Amino acid sequence: MLKVTNTHGSQVADFWAFSAADPGEHLSMEHMRPNLRKLCPAAGDALVTNRRRAILTLVSDSSEGVHDTLVASCDIHRYHELGHQGYHDNCTDNLRMALAAIGLALPQVPCPFNLWMNTPARPGGEMVWLPPVSRAGDAVMFRAEMDLIAVVSACPMDLLPINGADAVPRSLSVTVSAA
Amino acid sequence: MLKVTNTHGSQVADFWAFSAADPGEHLSMEHMRPNLRKLCPAAGDALVTNRRRAILTLVSDSSEGVHDTLVASCDIHRYHELGHQGYHDNCTDNLRMALAAIGLALPQVPCPFNLWMNTPARPGGEMVWLPPVSRAGDAVMFRAEMDLIAVVSACPMDLLPINGADAVPRSLSVTVSAA
Repeated sequence: MLKVTNTHGSQVADFWAFSAADPGEHLSMEHMRPNLRKLCPAAGDALVTNRRRAILTLVSDSSEGVHDTLVASCDIHRYHELGHQGYHDNCTDNLRMALAAIGLALPQVPCPFNLWMNTPARPGGEMVWLPPVSRAGDAVMFRAEMDLIAVVSACPMDLLPINGADAVPRSLSVTVSAA
Repeated sequence: MLKVTNTHGSQVADFWAFSAADPGEHLSMEHMRPNLRKLCPAAGDALVTNRRRAILTLVSDSSEGVHDTLVASCDIHRYHELGHQGYHDNCTDNLRMALAAIGLALPQVPCPFNLWMNTPARPGGEMVWLPPVSRAGDAVMFRAEMDLIAVVSACPMDLLPINGADAVPRSLSVTVSAA
């Protein structure tokens, strides 16, 4: 089991999963949505790869289940668009560095499952950027359905209120257990 | 200009665009949505790549603008899930074969921009699979913002009503002009 805990309640976790046998097979938001026939998974749902195989099951979610599947991970281009100058930590590079540390390089970065990110689409399709509705200690539990590599990035966004109204990124807790 | 015409009105067009200089840079739905702050582009909107640069502008759209940005292209796994046995034409392989014909191979297949695909999310997030609302002759026009490779697949889905209530795939027309 993989448990991601929102220690302070206000932090977005960009989440990815890759098949250990072939990282070209990975958790895919655009395959998961039609598979589930909904935008966002809930407890009991299978999360599928770009080959439409279950890679994880979302076993439990103590929060209200407000997560995002629509938005690419932040990258240096995003921070520059928002007015930042120079380098800024970002989830895309966090993923690349985490994989580089175990000797992997990706040709492309999949869209993450953005735990607790509250950026819904309104009727008509307009999207809004809001603080999480989660509380300190809220946790999401996943069961692995194949040998996999999971990566979690505590999103460093501090130019939009997605990590709380004060726009201060905070830590998360990730634990792995045998069952 | 690139014009995609829904000749019979009922046909979904899976649409991709890749930078000619580096096909690893491509039109990206998950980058486009936050850039536009909405689910689906409309006339005048810039469509961005996975490096958040404009690759196309959606210049005009004679239809009601009901398109999909949420759903992966159909693939052989999708048809098998839906009960089909053996091979079935699919948009993912159509893309691969079109690129193979010009000597390109992709490490990953991006989520397409699904022109006229009417698979909206209801309030609460449930998605539904409906026939297009477009009419015969409706057209979408794009202006290229960089040298690019565009691929259009007339979706061969015949197990769901996305290509009309009769679930019969039909032809599309694609034309390219200098201005």
